[in-house]
Amino acid sequence: MQADAKKVLRYLKTARGQIDGIMKMIEDDRYCIDISTQLMATQGLLNRANKEILSEHMRHCVNEATQEDVREEKIEEMIKVIDKLVK
Amino acid sequence: MQADAKKVLRYLKTARGQIDGIMKMIEDDRYCIDISTQLMATQGLLNRANKEILSEHMRHCVNEATQEDVREEKIEEMIKVIDKLVK
Amino acid sequence: MQADAKKVLRYLKTARGQIDGIMKMIEDDRYCIDISTQLMATQGLLNRANKEILSEHMRHCVNEATQEDVREEKIEEMIKVIDKLVK
Amino acid sequence: MQADAKKVLRYLKTARGQIDGIMKMIEDDRYCIDISTQLMATQGLLNRANKEILSEHMRHCVNEATQEDVREEKIEEMIKVIDKLVK
Repeated sequence: MQADAKKVLRYLKTARGQIDGIMKMIEDDRYCIDISTQLMATQGLLNRANKEILSEHMRHCVNEATQEDVREEKIEEMIKVIDKLVK
Repeated sequence: MQADAKKVLRYLKTARGQIDGIMKMIEDDRYCIDISTQLMATQGLLNRANKEILSEHMRHCVNEATQEDVREEKIEEMIKVIDKLVK
Repeated sequence: MQADAKKVLRYLKTARGQIDGIMKMIEDDRYCIDISTQLMATQGLLNRANKEILSEHMRHCVNEATQEDVREEKIEEMIKVIDKLVK
Repeated sequence: MQADAKKVLRYLKTARGQIDGIMKMIEDDRYCIDISTQLMATQGLLNRANKEILSEHMRHCVNEATQEDVREEKIEEMIKVIDKLVK
C-alpha cells in the first residue's frame, strides 16, 4: 500500500474500538438512535481511511505507472472503484 | 435497542473481524485496491447493521409512541438521521 | 405532498436549469471535470429537495396517522425509503 | 469532454424530463413518497451520467497525459472528485 500506513492504521484501530463500543451499547440495551449515530460516526472514519488509501494510490500507483499497459490496467481498476463510489 | 440484537451483533462482529484483516493487509503491505475493496465490503456490513437498527426503531419506538409529544420527538430524531443519510 | 411546495419547486426549477446548463457544456465540449462537478452540484440540490419532502412527510403523514393500520403502512413505506438511503 | 456525448446527453435529457414530471406531481399534490421515489430515480440517472463522464475522463484525459506535470495535475483533480464521492 502506498498510503501513510500509520495514519490508516490509526483510523482503523479507532474504528475497531468504536465497533467494540457499539457492541457494548447493544448489550447494555442502549437507545437505537444513539447506536445508529455511533455507527455512522464509525463509517465516517472508514471513509477517511478509504480516501487516504485511494488518494495515495492515485498519486503513486496510477501516476507512476509509466508502462502503457500497466497504466491502463490501473486506470480500469480505478474506474471500477469510482463506479462503486458513485451512489 | 428494538432491533434483533443477535443479528446486529453478528454483523458488527464480522465487521470487526474484517477490520482486523484489513489492518493485517496493511502491515503485510498488500495492494491498495485490495485494501480499499475490503474496506468497502466492511462498510456494506455496517450499512446492513444500520438498516436493521433503523427499521426496527421505526417499527417499534416510532410506531408505538402513542403519546403525542413523545412521537413528535421521535419523528424529529428520525428526520435528523434521514438528513445525514441523504447524500 | 406535505412539504413546502414552493421551496421544493424552487429547488427543482434550479436543478432543471442546471441540467440545461450541463447539456450546453457538453455541446460546447467543455472539460470533463467541470461537467462532473456541476452534475454533483445539481445532485446536491435534488438531495435538498428530497430532504424537504421526507422531513415534512415524517412530520405530517407519519406523525398524524392516528389509525394504527395506516400508521404501520406509512412506517413500512419509510423503512423502504431508508433502505435506499443507507448506502 | 471525452465521454460518449450522445449517451450522456440522453441521460440528462431523460433526467430533465423526469424533473418536469416531478414538478407536475407536486402541482397535482401527489403523494410525498411517490415524489421522493421519482426523485431518487432521477438521481440514479445523474449518477449514470457521472460514471460515464468520469470513466472516460480516466481512460483518456488521465491515461493519455504523458507529460509528467500535466498528469500530476489531472491526478490531483481526480483525488478531489473521489473525496466528494466517498461518503
